[in-house]
Amino acid sequence: MREVGIIGAGLTRFKEHWDSSLRDLFVEAALKAIDDAETPEIDSMYVGCMSSGLFVGQEHIGPLLADYLGLKNVPTVRVESACASGALALRLGFMEIASGMSDIVLVSGVEKMTDCDDPTSALAAAADIENEAFFGATFPALYALIARAHMDRYGTTREQLAAVSVKNHKNGAKNPDAQFQREVSLETVLNSFMVADPLTLLQCSPITDGAAAIILVPLDMVKKMKDRVVKITGSGVASDTIALHSRKDITSLEAVRLAGERAYKMAGRKPEDIDVCEVHDCFSIAELIVVEELGFVEKGNSGRFIEEGNTEIGGRIPVNTSGGLKAKGHPVGASGIAQVIEIYKQLIGNAEERQVKNARIGMAQNMGGTGASSVVHIMEVAE
Amino acid sequence: MREVGIIGAGLTRFKEHWDSSLRDLFVEAALKAIDDAETPEIDSMYVGCMSSGLFVGQEHIGPLLADYLGLKNVPTVRVESACASGALALRLGFMEIASGMSDIVLVSGVEKMTDCDDPTSALAAAADIENEAFFGATFPALYALIARAHMDRYGTTREQLAAVSVKNHKNGAKNPDAQFQREVSLETVLNSFMVADPLTLLQCSPITDGAAAIILVPLDMVKKMKDRVVKITGSGVASDTIALHSRKDITSLEAVRLAGERAYKMAGRKPEDIDVCEVHDCFSIAELIVVEELGFVEKGNSGRFIEEGNTEIGGRIPVNTSGGLKAKGHPVGASGIAQVIEIYKQLIGNAEERQVKNARIGMAQNMGGTGASSVVHIMEVAE
Repeated sequence: MREVGIIGAGLTRFKEHWDSSLRDLFVEAALKAIDDAETPEIDSMYVGCMSSGLFVGQEHIGPLLADYLGLKNVPTVRVESACASGALALRLGFMEIASGMSDIVLVSGVEKMTDCDDPTSALAAAADIENEAFFGATFPALYALIARAHMDRYGTTREQLAAVSVKNHKNGAKNPDAQFQREVSLETVLNSFMVADPLTLLQCSPITDGAAAIILVPLDMVKKMKDRVVKITGSGVASDTIALHSRKDITSLEAVRLAGERAYKMAGRKPEDIDVCEVHDCFSIAELIVVEELGFVEKGNSGRFIEEGNTEIGGRIPVNTSGGLKAKGHPVGASGIAQVIEIYKQLIGNAEERQVKNARIGMAQNMGGTGASSVVHIMEVAE
Repeated sequence: MREVGIIGAGLTRFKEHWDSSLRDLFVEAALKAIDDAETPEIDSMYVGCMSSGLFVGQEHIGPLLADYLGLKNVPTVRVESACASGALALRLGFMEIASGMSDIVLVSGVEKMTDCDDPTSALAAAADIENEAFFGATFPALYALIARAHMDRYGTTREQLAAVSVKNHKNGAKNPDAQFQREVSLETVLNSFMVADPLTLLQCSPITDGAAAIILVPLDMVKKMKDRVVKITGSGVASDTIALHSRKDITSLEAVRLAGERAYKMAGRKPEDIDVCEVHDCFSIAELIVVEELGFVEKGNSGRFIEEGNTEIGGRIPVNTSGGLKAKGHPVGASGIAQVIEIYKQLIGNAEERQVKNARIGMAQNMGGTGASSVVHIMEVAE
């Protein structure tokens, strides 16, 4: 297998884009990535999108977006794994270059969520429709069950949950592409509207429009064109039961652990090697459990871990320097690509006020539903 | 790149399955493929599905279907390219083995269409929603425009169009998995209800439920386990404008031509080498134009070509021996995989009454929308 590197990246600002359509958002992000890569040639294109069908009534977006980007005739693939669609698109593009089938691949993610009357119901299509959503379960409710169980078993507190949002808003305030660029206090998070106890409004990621794109090429090509070279060294994917009630232990996210293990194994790395990490904080509790599953802290101890500042910029393992899904926003199909872009920026030393010092190895973890699918990538600065 | 072979295949009967759900259909086809392959180990799974979101309200079907198949934790990818979703899933599985990332990959397609109030509108999501469907265009109407233009430019007749359905129903009558297992006369086709002039009801593929699955492995493994070995030698994909009105010439399907050229080039084959072919006859006119674009007959001559019997079993190039989408049925996400299964059966000499004598090289052509995406595979008997 050939080594694969990142040669360009671009994203739209994440926010409610009332004047842009799905295709507009994609084209903006893709053109930025093409400009950044300084190569107009694209051999093949992947787009991760959870549900353009339910959000805007449009399927078949592979050729549609290629056409609007001016890439008519290029092979295109649309990939869906709910909120993990973006990272899965990246993995497939990685594989296409690693296999030698193509040289220059655009991998992207997009979601236009605000044109839909009822995005919460559309999002529920990522749960088990027949056995969860039909009976009224929505994602805030399902993650609240997980949070309750974690509090009960490990003594995780409401304050520790809320601390995730405080940290991520602090980081988001330094990110010009974030939906919410302002800090919030612990009190504000705790006193915000209760969505599903213990999850308050400020512990739930928002409805967002946005797109993100990356251009992947063989590593040799990046070395010729860029000073600071980043390669993808690990890619892991795993699945779990789609329904939360089918799991042995709802305080664990098995697909995250397995995807992490597979990525670590492929890269030949351990948790201690990771300098910076983006994780899928769709709800505050998700970040806590993911940090445990990826091996950064022992099972059950994530609450104390974040409270002690370990996951802040400057801490032992900075998590969600971008602001995470909470503050940066969560256009579901785009989030997995945007996470990788944040890590890429950190590794090339281009993360501005959010820069983690001496970041040389980074990780991005994306997941769908209540963790029925998860994708983990490890990226490293190449010599 | 490693060579890739087929070690097992399975499909449900294609029909209106009122007692089976999306997950039931998938599991039936996948278990048949696993039985056929005589290997319970699966490293990775791809599923092609156009719109489980619009048809049954369920997204995130990768992990859902893996779970129901008993493959929890396996990496899964759902792929969408409208009616070309199935073949695209096959291509990605092919790439995963070719790259060396995995050894045993289940590639599948599924669609449960009859649970939806208005499948024609759901299918229209494969067209340009903003510029075609919003103004009332449906696929029968769009393909009728194409048919009119082909008649006008090349003198193609209503009888030649209808001959496609007559041939495909004749083949479907010999296929125990087909939705319609009965022959129809030219008069019956011509006199059936006019859907969109010149396309009568019997020139339009039906609404169908069904699933299909194939297991891919490195070629060496097939050689050890099977007497008759089939390898995939060519895989081509291309896209075109999603909107029909954006094309220079609506009597051509550029994505089909390009995907075909790419597959021929990869396999080192020419049209004359192909012994049997499955094409995407969503409407009668589609089969005629595809036969031209794949190089089996000169542009504009497909009407006479079929009238003279060249595409019948026993003719120069048998097309749609399975009955095609018209008679076999068209559960959109499954069709691309079912086409490949028909070619596989032909090449291993297992096509029963439909068997093409001495078939050693076969082709399957799948497409989405009015040809905005197309995927072509070439398969060959390996020594």
